[in-house]
Amino acid sequence: MKEWDSFDKIVKAKGVWLTDSKGHKMMDAVASMWCNVWGHSNPQLIKAINQQSKKLQHSSQFNLTTEPAEELADSLVKISPGMHKVFYSDNGSSAMEIAIKIALQYWKNIGNKKKTEIATIENGYHGDTFGAMSVGYVPEFFGKFKKQLFSTIQFTVPNKYKMPNGFTLADYQNQCLDKIEKGFSKKDNIAAFVMESGAQVAGGVIIYPKGFQKKISQLCKKHDVLFVLDEIATGFGRLGSMVQYEEQKSIPDIVAYGKMLTGGYLTMAATLTNKKIYDSFLGEFNDWKHLFHGHTYTGNPIAAAVANENLKMYKKNNLIKKIQKISKVFEKFYDEISEIDIVGDIRHKGMLMGIELVKDKKRKTPISPKKSINKIFFDEGKKNGIYLRTLGNIVMLVPPLAISESELELLLKRTILTIKSAKSKVS
Amino acid sequence: MKEWDSFDKIVKAKGVWLTDSKGHKMMDAVASMWCNVWGHSNPQLIKAINQQSKKLQHSSQFNLTTEPAEELADSLVKISPGMHKVFYSDNGSSAMEIAIKIALQYWKNIGNKKKTEIATIENGYHGDTFGAMSVGYVPEFFGKFKKQLFSTIQFTVPNKYKMPNGFTLADYQNQCLDKIEKGFSKKDNIAAFVMESGAQVAGGVIIYPKGFQKKISQLCKKHDVLFVLDEIATGFGRLGSMVQYEEQKSIPDIVAYGKMLTGGYLTMAATLTNKKIYDSFLGEFNDWKHLFHGHTYTGNPIAAAVANENLKMYKKNNLIKKIQKISKVFEKFYDEISEIDIVGDIRHKGMLMGIELVKDKKRKTPISPKKSINKIFFDEGKKNGIYLRTLGNIVMLVPPLAISESELELLLKRTILTIKSAKSKVS
Repeated sequence: MKEWDSFDKIVKAKGVWLTDSKGHKMMDAVASMWCNVWGHSNPQLIKAINQQSKKLQHSSQFNLTTEPAEELADSLVKISPGMHKVFYSDNGSSAMEIAIKIALQYWKNIGNKKKTEIATIENGYHGDTFGAMSVGYVPEFFGKFKKQLFSTIQFTVPNKYKMPNGFTLADYQNQCLDKIEKGFSKKDNIAAFVMESGAQVAGGVIIYPKGFQKKISQLCKKHDVLFVLDEIATGFGRLGSMVQYEEQKSIPDIVAYGKMLTGGYLTMAATLTNKKIYDSFLGEFNDWKHLFHGHTYTGNPIAAAVANENLKMYKKNNLIKKIQKISKVFEKFYDEISEIDIVGDIRHKGMLMGIELVKDKKRKTPISPKKSINKIFFDEGKKNGIYLRTLGNIVMLVPPLAISESELELLLKRTILTIKSAKSKVS
Repeated sequence: MKEWDSFDKIVKAKGVWLTDSKGHKMMDAVASMWCNVWGHSNPQLIKAINQQSKKLQHSSQFNLTTEPAEELADSLVKISPGMHKVFYSDNGSSAMEIAIKIALQYWKNIGNKKKTEIATIENGYHGDTFGAMSVGYVPEFFGKFKKQLFSTIQFTVPNKYKMPNGFTLADYQNQCLDKIEKGFSKKDNIAAFVMESGAQVAGGVIIYPKGFQKKISQLCKKHDVLFVLDEIATGFGRLGSMVQYEEQKSIPDIVAYGKMLTGGYLTMAATLTNKKIYDSFLGEFNDWKHLFHGHTYTGNPIAAAVANENLKMYKKNNLIKKIQKISKVFEKFYDEISEIDIVGDIRHKGMLMGIELVKDKKRKTPISPKKSINKIFFDEGKKNGIYLRTLGNIVMLVPPLAISESELELLLKRTILTIKSAKSKVS
């Protein structure tokens, strides 16, 4: 952490622009950690916060409920095919912990004592708490806590940039799916299969090949394994669909939302389940079928109110259609970015782009400067007027979803400048 | 869950009063899950939310910072003797997960590979996520997830209501402390000792005898074990002190705050460490000494702004002094409550009271109706105009901290009525 001896203070923000205490302006290239939807200081969202905060700031979901939380639950169920009920929490990690607990307890509730293991995909990421670290184990991130993490059954993701020699992507995908099928056939103790929906984001923008997620959902159904999806970073339009699992034709048993849920203004997350799962938790008190989980601020009315306004705006402004159109701007820059000699690969879907930086294009060896790549690109991005946060050797572009065409063009131009000017510092 | 076929919708609230959609009013006897400080709809806190939400709704703490988050960190360090830096998160469970991760990684950062175990007290509670469940393992709550929880070294808490035969409380406390000392002497692999500060709350309002926590802090120091305190439910005045560990004369290495931090309006939590711990995380990037943890909405400016106003109000209104005075109202009702034939014990400190309900005062056997005690008391409380949530066989009184003397008297009277009228339903 020594490198980070001081931090710029953001004092105001409007649209895609952040302004620091020295008056310096930067474009928010990562949507303030992948959550901002409409840009900063959107008047409708601010109004929703202010109106609700005058009415009811917080009342508990323990034994009681509130209007904004109920309205939001109805809306979430409505946009989520196959889902039946909503469990609120305060961040994505917690939403995934809840998903795991529900999946494990479901089998106990219906009397199956065997199914106690969680299967996942290597390189997945589901948050930083112990349960989330266990199912999304990234060795470099979480190796220090390995002893405290529970073990999972891990399968391989078909990463088109790192395929075995002589394989086509179709070959590789089939091999990965075969292994999952064999794993499922051999073991009758798998409670659930947990994966990000549409793409692995924190794991390096690995976009699944067509049919991969669908096939896994079918295998889960066939082998009686619960299918648990994490749409925290990938849903709500990030990859170009409101609900990514609909595009992937893969209805889950449990799904988690977060990040964009409130438009990027207040923290809130949600875990949804289908009716089969929900019903398994119903019982007389002494059956002990209920879920022991509940955070203090669960379903907070102010957060729910801004989420409600956010969801209405998605519909009214036809945001998903707009994303599908505007995200084509990325494609116009594919060639120009690819030509930079430290760019090994670009991966893009919807409003997400990962640019992988390498020392050697053929060998695909990642750049490895002494200083952190994140710090180098943050400093260089700042000079070019963009706020960047890289993930390892990958430059992430994750702009506010409602970014305009011209703003996105400017962002891409500034990103190209940044990569070029950072080149001498990373190689 | 079947019992809970419908939920009352709270639509507005003012002071200690909640109003549901049918116009029915209830006193908030549990401070909307132990977090409300100034009552509902406090104009100063609402103003803080509204002013900040017009300026900057959210900007990331990844690579950047904001004014409200910086101001709050300074204030938290100022009120917390021995503490040096602040790590933000979104709920208490996450704050404790962070505390555990920091404690485990500290030893790795300074090159000690042995210290990898966490010691705790039986019956403690630190949240519902996997790490938090592991260190605060309550079998009835978390038995279904045991396979996925990491093991800890557990010691006994001297519960004055359940002492071994023939023991005085001093005997029992000494026995408990001896076991801890012997445990520490025998094992050199204990990374940290984790406990709630001042009392176990969710574990049944077990208030530590005088000197218990202080002695543990001394044993930790002597045996080179990090001392980690959870003040999420007990700090910020709940037990009568701003910082409970100061009253207990037991400076921790790491402490977590939550619940009351924002006055009870928005979710936010914080984990603080001393300089020794913080410095161990400083290094060049390639030393990999940094902590891999960060939630999207970490340090959210709106939550931080309301927390800042909340902290100013504590000072300006001399809240802690007022709590110390007004909490004496509880004492006036000790006899009247104790005389009820299903009341086995009352335990009280500051603005927290637990009333333990039993079938048999001598044998201390808990009441065990078929329906859940929580549901029975919620329904009965509602009839008497109070919002109650029990914990097992314990009626919890955890009112908003700034409750007035007359309101607290009314709350206690209504609680007595509720226990009496619920009697026929629980025995």
